[in-house]
Amino acid sequence: MNLQNLPSSLLQELFEFLRFPSVSANPSYAEQTRACARWLCNKFKSLGLESNLWETTGYPVVVARNSPDPSKPTVLIYGHYDVQPPEPLDAWHNPPFEPVLRDDRVYARGASDNKGQLFAHIAGLELLLRNSNALPTNILFLIEGEEEIGSCSLPAFLNQHQRQLACDVVIVSDSGMVAHGFPTLAYSLRGITALECFVKGPSHDLHSGVYGGAVHNPIAAAARLIASLHHPDGRVAIQGFYDRVRPLEAWERGAVKNLPIVEDDIRIQTGAPSLFGEPGFNAIERIGSRPTAEVNGIGGGYQGPGTKTVIPSEAFFKLTFRLVPDQDADEILTLAEEHLRAHCPPGVVLTIQRGHSGNWFFSNPNAPYATAAREALREVFGQEVALLREGGSIPILSEIQKIFGVECLLLALASPDCNAHAPNENFPLENLQRGITLHQTLLRRIASVFPTLRGSQPSPSAEQRARSTC
Amino acid sequence: MNLQNLPSSLLQELFEFLRFPSVSANPSYAEQTRACARWLCNKFKSLGLESNLWETTGYPVVVARNSPDPSKPTVLIYGHYDVQPPEPLDAWHNPPFEPVLRDDRVYARGASDNKGQLFAHIAGLELLLRNSNALPTNILFLIEGEEEIGSCSLPAFLNQHQRQLACDVVIVSDSGMVAHGFPTLAYSLRGITALECFVKGPSHDLHSGVYGGAVHNPIAAAARLIASLHHPDGRVAIQGFYDRVRPLEAWERGAVKNLPIVEDDIRIQTGAPSLFGEPGFNAIERIGSRPTAEVNGIGGGYQGPGTKTVIPSEAFFKLTFRLVPDQDADEILTLAEEHLRAHCPPGVVLTIQRGHSGNWFFSNPNAPYATAAREALREVFGQEVALLREGGSIPILSEIQKIFGVECLLLALASPDCNAHAPNENFPLENLQRGITLHQTLLRRIASVFPTLRGSQPSPSAEQRARSTC
Repeated sequence: MNLQNLPSSLLQELFEFLRFPSVSANPSYAEQTRACARWLCNKFKSLGLESNLWETTGYPVVVARNSPDPSKPTVLIYGHYDVQPPEPLDAWHNPPFEPVLRDDRVYARGASDNKGQLFAHIAGLELLLRNSNALPTNILFLIEGEEEIGSCSLPAFLNQHQRQLACDVVIVSDSGMVAHGFPTLAYSLRGITALECFVKGPSHDLHSGVYGGAVHNPIAAAARLIASLHHPDGRVAIQGFYDRVRPLEAWERGAVKNLPIVEDDIRIQTGAPSLFGEPGFNAIERIGSRPTAEVNGIGGGYQGPGTKTVIPSEAFFKLTFRLVPDQDADEILTLAEEHLRAHCPPGVVLTIQRGHSGNWFFSNPNAPYATAAREALREVFGQEVALLREGGSIPILSEIQKIFGVECLLLALASPDCNAHAPNENFPLENLQRGITLHQTLLRRIASVFPTLRGSQPSPSAEQRARSTC
Repeated sequence: MNLQNLPSSLLQELFEFLRFPSVSANPSYAEQTRACARWLCNKFKSLGLESNLWETTGYPVVVARNSPDPSKPTVLIYGHYDVQPPEPLDAWHNPPFEPVLRDDRVYARGASDNKGQLFAHIAGLELLLRNSNALPTNILFLIEGEEEIGSCSLPAFLNQHQRQLACDVVIVSDSGMVAHGFPTLAYSLRGITALECFVKGPSHDLHSGVYGGAVHNPIAAAARLIASLHHPDGRVAIQGFYDRVRPLEAWERGAVKNLPIVEDDIRIQTGAPSLFGEPGFNAIERIGSRPTAEVNGIGGGYQGPGTKTVIPSEAFFKLTFRLVPDQDADEILTLAEEHLRAHCPPGVVLTIQRGHSGNWFFSNPNAPYATAAREALREVFGQEVALLREGGSIPILSEIQKIFGVECLLLALASPDCNAHAPNENFPLENLQRGITLHQTLLRRIASVFPTLRGSQPSPSAEQRARSTC
């Protein structure tokens, strides 16, 4: 790959985009986050797109589209302009909102998540427009500013603008390749749901000498509850937990075997003394296709240095469950609550509080547009495409899939060492270059599939549908 | 009881004593703590005692004695002039070091623990000296300034001055009556020992989506370890834990039944939804005579509001074990470590750190001086004496018992509602008055037992022993 191909003006523009501290989680960055949305909206305008900022109850959504041709498919590209908080600042080699180019990588908060990956599509489109009169597809950008805080406003926005946003396929580049340089189509993500448990014993902290032995220690009771959630071999012990789990198909297990990583790579990445998990599955399968019950936090009693002889009045723990097709978040919460209540030891009172849920995502990687995307990936990267079930969650994806009823393709442009959500986040110029090329190849491939699909389906194109309803 | 009997000068002096913020735990009070020791030393001098401040590696020890008569037994009264920190200050109705008299109780930090109880003995002695030419016994005060921080310097001091401090019986008033107005002889205290456990999994915090399912969550592993420490019915599950526990004798279970409190009083005091503990013993027996394994603190992962999808790198928990006759702290630590190591789940590394230990205390309540003390208590309070095994620990007591080889009598002068270690600590004037009377009655009773003992034993009196060696 010749990095010299990259016009320097593009890099300058990416730096401009990265300089906005668009930290959605921190209200003190509100003005800069909105300024970033305006910059993006104007960038799309400069490409000749019809571009609008749509206000929501939170940060605005940027929607940009070309002048649509009803004979072509509409490709919706989803992304986000908000970024994770940059802390801890002293772990960065450069200020997180002053991007630098070092060893052919751009270092800045948001470099890969998601500004860099998104910018590859924008730059790809810009070069395409510069070199030809007509795009192979209609293009529709949907860029939100609240992805890092749970996409709170987006579902309502999508429902409200469902018809204007009608599309034939959704492209998302907001994830990581399985290994650097290996093109990856993530065809599934896990869902998530959360519970917080409070185990209350005595009405106040007790002296463990004066009362120890006569009451149930809330920490011990909490530990018993947590221990009850798993069998010693790692299987979740909640009755019915696995009932709706869709078994891995043979081709999926084959795809895992063909990945350019092995179990030991996971061990090295985590730094754990050894891997551990549900029997019958390897670590990659456990992460991508098996549900979990995880304790994310626990607290109770004295946590300072030395000893304090206290029986605390209360202990708490935070649970999240990662969900896979075809589990239902509400059902899992109910099963978990029933389990916890049934296993609550005597002498304490258990209070359970439900948190937010996000659905799992599954999109058949052998469906027509996915097949086209895999061919585009293979062409651009010169490598077989890794088919991956990812362990993380992007709850908005299943919403998008549900609302638009089309294929959603998760085409990673970040590498595992891009440090998303961590200090020294970066984006290799190589990935930017490949993303630019991918965008162009992808639109071409999608365009070539579309007539076949239209021929085989009685339904009108997205564009026709949009026009008939707006 | 006629509170008018209490000379107002005595109360003024108690207030003086209480005004010193002798908080040993807080180095910023060091000068006032030392000033308190000097005040106490001078107070003893004003009574005609030979009184000295002995420097240690920490706060000084005050030793005061009368001119000894070898024909009389020597009574050593142990106490402490340091107090607990007064925080939280805003929970006090008066500034903790500006004592006030309200509803016939003195409110101040240290009012009961230990200045008030100690002052009852001093005032008792003062009135005795005022009204008679000769004391019934020799008297020896040993008052330290580090009880609230573990009596760090005292064992070395005692060993160094063992012969000068020789005595026939030790009296300690540094505990609580089983119920207000019920004279109490605590004949046993539990010992204590501590462990801190660190459960380390991945080398850094992991995203619970990206890696969840592939590694053992350190909080889940810690919970499994904690749950392994007890059988579900409350018994400690560490092999050999109960092997050396001295069974309760029939008279002891009888004494528990005769106490002026019942199990439900414990439930009300703790505010727990129900009592819970080792089967086969009631709550009072469990507290006083059964050992425990208690989790005093736990921490791991995210403890803030909401959800953070983290698998923490590490979790920790703090354990203390309350020990009873004839358990050995080192042996229990070894058994506990072996248990924890044997039960440590795969995929994590367990590190165990030992804390400090303090021995249990047991002094036969039917021994000669104890019997004399019980008679004194009955005479002063007009009630049957409650014989109690207390659940707390005063490690220095077993040291004193070991070094001096004499009976140690724990005669409580505080009531359960005196709020020791808590805001609004107080001491009822009634208890002060009774303590004063008890001191006088006690010396008389001890003096009457002494000839019998001397007659039955070939050994010289403490005074003779002291003289022969100093």
